[in-house]
Amino acid sequence: MSDRPLILVSNDDGIDAKGIRALAAAVSDLGDVVVVAPLEEQSAVGHAITMRTPVRLRSWPFEAADGSGPDIRAFAVTGTPADCVKIAVDKLLDRRPDLVVSGVNHGANTAVNVLYSGTVSAATEGSVLGIPSIAFSLCANGPDLDFRDSTAVARQISRKVLSVGLAPGILLNVNIPAVARGQLQGAMVTRQARARWEEEFVERRDPFDELYYWLSGRFVELDNGANTDLWAISNGFVSITPIDHDLTAHEQLERLDGLRWLDA
Amino acid sequence: MSDRPLILVSNDDGIDAKGIRALAAAVSDLGDVVVVAPLEEQSAVGHAITMRTPVRLRSWPFEAADGSGPDIRAFAVTGTPADCVKIAVDKLLDRRPDLVVSGVNHGANTAVNVLYSGTVSAATEGSVLGIPSIAFSLCANGPDLDFRDSTAVARQISRKVLSVGLAPGILLNVNIPAVARGQLQGAMVTRQARARWEEEFVERRDPFDELYYWLSGRFVELDNGANTDLWAISNGFVSITPIDHDLTAHEQLERLDGLRWLDA
Repeated sequence: MSDRPLILVSNDDGIDAKGIRALAAAVSDLGDVVVVAPLEEQSAVGHAITMRTPVRLRSWPFEAADGSGPDIRAFAVTGTPADCVKIAVDKLLDRRPDLVVSGVNHGANTAVNVLYSGTVSAATEGSVLGIPSIAFSLCANGPDLDFRDSTAVARQISRKVLSVGLAPGILLNVNIPAVARGQLQGAMVTRQARARWEEEFVERRDPFDELYYWLSGRFVELDNGANTDLWAISNGFVSITPIDHDLTAHEQLERLDGLRWLDA
Repeated sequence: MSDRPLILVSNDDGIDAKGIRALAAAVSDLGDVVVVAPLEEQSAVGHAITMRTPVRLRSWPFEAADGSGPDIRAFAVTGTPADCVKIAVDKLLDRRPDLVVSGVNHGANTAVNVLYSGTVSAATEGSVLGIPSIAFSLCANGPDLDFRDSTAVARQISRKVLSVGLAPGILLNVNIPAVARGQLQGAMVTRQARARWEEEFVERRDPFDELYYWLSGRFVELDNGANTDLWAISNGFVSITPIDHDLTAHEQLERLDGLRWLDA
């Protein structure tokens, strides 16, 4: 058995996405790398898991971005990012991973979008299983994304977490601005910005004259803070947000405890 | 336009579930009630939203548990609980709801299970939209659940929240033990217990001799605290957990800020 760290790589864009290929290559010299990722794109699945249908696994030919493909074991899963991490740990890996990295996502996962993010969900599942975990997203869209600079950043942050660890129950949500390496201003530890979507469902009629709706909308930032994820990325900083998978609003406990909730 | 509070009712068990029928009836005297719920069961979907396919809406014959059906407007949505709340607010309601209630779920949503819960997700989405929101779950399973006592509790907590409100960004996750009203010990404000699943994927072969896996597992409590959701329900108390949809681990910001994340 290897004494190198074991690194599990997953994502939500699917096993053939450019971002996961670049990420696997970038961390491949930090340890033994295994890729377990969804067969198909799973964006906006939140922290879904598959319980009512079976999942299937397939060994997958995986060529990492730098051509180091043949050395990386990879499996495609017919399920969600959280399913991938669960089944990797239970069925596929011969020892417990030392690190879970998810991404690199094609597009930012900031502010309220963290709630919907499959990329973050894979890291959340890692952290639920007690494994230091990081979600990486590149803040740009389009088919021609160049992941090289972002994966150099992902490699450095992964190495740091392998060396110093994370507090129990804490994962990191890292957003990387789409600027060339030389333009990067550095890294900032941030909080999620307050923001919301002004939803607008686009209403259409199908060929059978039945109405259907597509979710659409406008993202509205509600936060002027200079220590937020949105501020960091729009000012050229890598944003590192610690995320807690305990959702309890601890600071509310005392106030709510003073209320009378039930009739006598 | 009515000046009664507008109450949006959703769930994840689907619009025909017993729990949502009982909940809609229970809150029907507190305001104008509209039900918008998934057409089909959506358990364990987490905070998924539907972006890659359209959603459809259907007006639904809705008979509440007490026979007050004809007065309750109801719509079934081909989507997730979060979709239901989004489309209700954008397309179906003529004014902003004063309260979102989700449930009553058939089964507990405690500890780490909150992450996977569609019931909680509907309430999370309400809170993202700035609406006071509550998820209700009955801590029992089986086809013959009696929701009467739990919905009496849900009604009282809903009335309290309509009267005192909730802090911005905070929702309540309420778990109700399956005991008769007289046995209820009261209500407790709690935190999520630390717990995890010891996953075990059951491995089977399909008729074509291909392997498939069902997610299964054993729930392991890791928390001895007496102020947790698990403690409350196993001691006959209604558990009321304030949940924050800002996932930032604020107490980690300072420590992580002291680390050097990127090479010079």
